[in-house]
Amino acid sequence: MCELLAMSANVPTDIVFSFTGLAERGGVTGPHIDGWGITFYEGKGNRTFKDARPSSESHVAKLIKSYPIKSEVVVSHIRQANRGGVSLENTHPFTRELWGQYWTYAHNGQLSDYQDKFISTRFNAVGDTDSEMAFCWIMDKVVEQFGDNAPADMLLVYRFIATLADEIRALGVFNMILSDGEHLMSYCSNNLCYITRCAPFGKAKLIDTDVVIDFDKETTPNDVVTVIATRPLTKDEQWNVLAAGEWKLFKKGELLIG
Amino acid sequence: MCELLAMSANVPTDIVFSFTGLAERGGVTGPHIDGWGITFYEGKGNRTFKDARPSSESHVAKLIKSYPIKSEVVVSHIRQANRGGVSLENTHPFTRELWGQYWTYAHNGQLSDYQDKFISTRFNAVGDTDSEMAFCWIMDKVVEQFGDNAPADMLLVYRFIATLADEIRALGVFNMILSDGEHLMSYCSNNLCYITRCAPFGKAKLIDTDVVIDFDKETTPNDVVTVIATRPLTKDEQWNVLAAGEWKLFKKGELLIG
Repeated sequence: MCELLAMSANVPTDIVFSFTGLAERGGVTGPHIDGWGITFYEGKGNRTFKDARPSSESHVAKLIKSYPIKSEVVVSHIRQANRGGVSLENTHPFTRELWGQYWTYAHNGQLSDYQDKFISTRFNAVGDTDSEMAFCWIMDKVVEQFGDNAPADMLLVYRFIATLADEIRALGVFNMILSDGEHLMSYCSNNLCYITRCAPFGKAKLIDTDVVIDFDKETTPNDVVTVIATRPLTKDEQWNVLAAGEWKLFKKGELLIG
Repeated sequence: MCELLAMSANVPTDIVFSFTGLAERGGVTGPHIDGWGITFYEGKGNRTFKDARPSSESHVAKLIKSYPIKSEVVVSHIRQANRGGVSLENTHPFTRELWGQYWTYAHNGQLSDYQDKFISTRFNAVGDTDSEMAFCWIMDKVVEQFGDNAPADMLLVYRFIATLADEIRALGVFNMILSDGEHLMSYCSNNLCYITRCAPFGKAKLIDTDVVIDFDKETTPNDVVTVIATRPLTKDEQWNVLAAGEWKLFKKGELLIG
C-alpha cells in the first residue's frame, strides 16, 4: 500500500507542513520506501518532483521540505511497491495532457485481473504498474465519451470518471487522486480522509514528527485550504473519513460535489 | 533567444559540470532570466525540474548543481521569453507521452505566422508559446503518419520529424532538441553545436564560470558522452558546429544519423 496526499486551495499555499508529515512515513514512521513524488500546479503549468529513493532520506524531498512552493493544487504519493518494480517510471504521480490541460493522478491500492480491462490506445503506460494502466484507461475512456474538446461543464467529466472508478474498485483497492489543475477529485475505496481549513484558524500538530504549526500566522482570513490524505496527518483536528465508493470534487479548496 | 543543453551517454552520467556553465547564462553571463528547466531520463522514466525564476538564483537549480543525478539522456533549456509570458506552463522542456514513451522537447528561436500552421487535435499546448505549439503539431503529425503504434524502425520517425522541422524553420529560427528517452535528436537553424567525449579523456574549463573538470577522473575508458549546446560551454575543446538545416541523431552517446 501507499500513502496519498493532496491539496486544493483558493490562494497559492505551501504544503511544507503536510509533506513533512507524509515524508516521515516513507521510511521512518511508515514502510513506504519505494519512491515518492509530488506535483505542484502553478497556474496552468505544473512541476513534479520525484525520486525512486525513500522520501525520508531523499535529497529532493529535503528541498521540498525547505523550499515553500506555493500552489493551488498539489498531488503527492509515497510508494510501497506491490505491482511493478521500484523505478522512476513506476513512481507516482503520473501526468498526461488532455484538452490543453495537464491531468495528474496518483493511486493507492492494488488491483487484480486488470490486464484484459485496461486496454488503451491513445494513452499508454510507460511503466508496468496497475496504477498507471488504470490512469491511461480512464483517460482513453474520457476521450471516447467527450471527444477532442473539453465539454462546457467539466463536472460531467468528473461524474463520468467516478463511474469508471466504480468499475476499477470492483478489481481491488482503488483510492485515487486526480486533478486537471483546477479541480481535485478524490475517490475512496477504503482509506481516504480530508479536512477543510478556513478562518478561524488554529494550531495543529503532526502525528508523524514533532512539528506544530499555527495556521493563523500562515494564512489570511479568506483562505480556504483542503488537504486530503490516506490517514489523518494531524492531531487536534477533525478529519472527515470517506466511505467505500464515496468521492469528492474540490475547486479552490471548496467542495463542489460530494 | 534561449540556450539549449542536452546529453546522450552510454552509461548513466551526471551533467552537473555542463549545467553549472549553462545556469550562469541565466542571469550572470547571459540574459536568459525567464525560467529554466531540465529533464533527466532514468530508464524509461524521467523527471523534470523547472522554475520560472532565473537559473542563476533558483533554489532548484542549486539542487541540480549539487546533487548529481545520473542519466543517459538529458534535455535542458534556459529561457529569454519572446513569445508567451513568463510562467511555469511556458517553461521548457515540454513532455508528452506517445507509444508508451515520454517525448521531451525544447526549442530555441522565434517563429512568425505560425498560428494557422500549428493546428493540432490530439496533442495540445497548455501554455501559449510558439515552441509548445510546434511540438504538439509535430507529435500530431507523427501519429498521423505512423498511427497508434511505434514502427519497428524508429529512425524512420526521426527522418520524418526532420522534414517537419524543415517546414517549421521556414517560419523563423528553429533550433530544437527532441528525445524519446533513447534517441536524442538535435536540429539546427542557426545556433547548435556538439562534442562527443570518449577515451582518452582530458581536462576542460567552463567558459562561463571558473570551473575545471578532469573527465579522466570522472569516467571509465568505455564511456561515450555527447553534449549538445547552443554555444560551446568549454574552452580547450573542439566543438562541432551544425549548419542551417543540419540535424543529428544520437543514441547512447554515438552518432546514428548525421
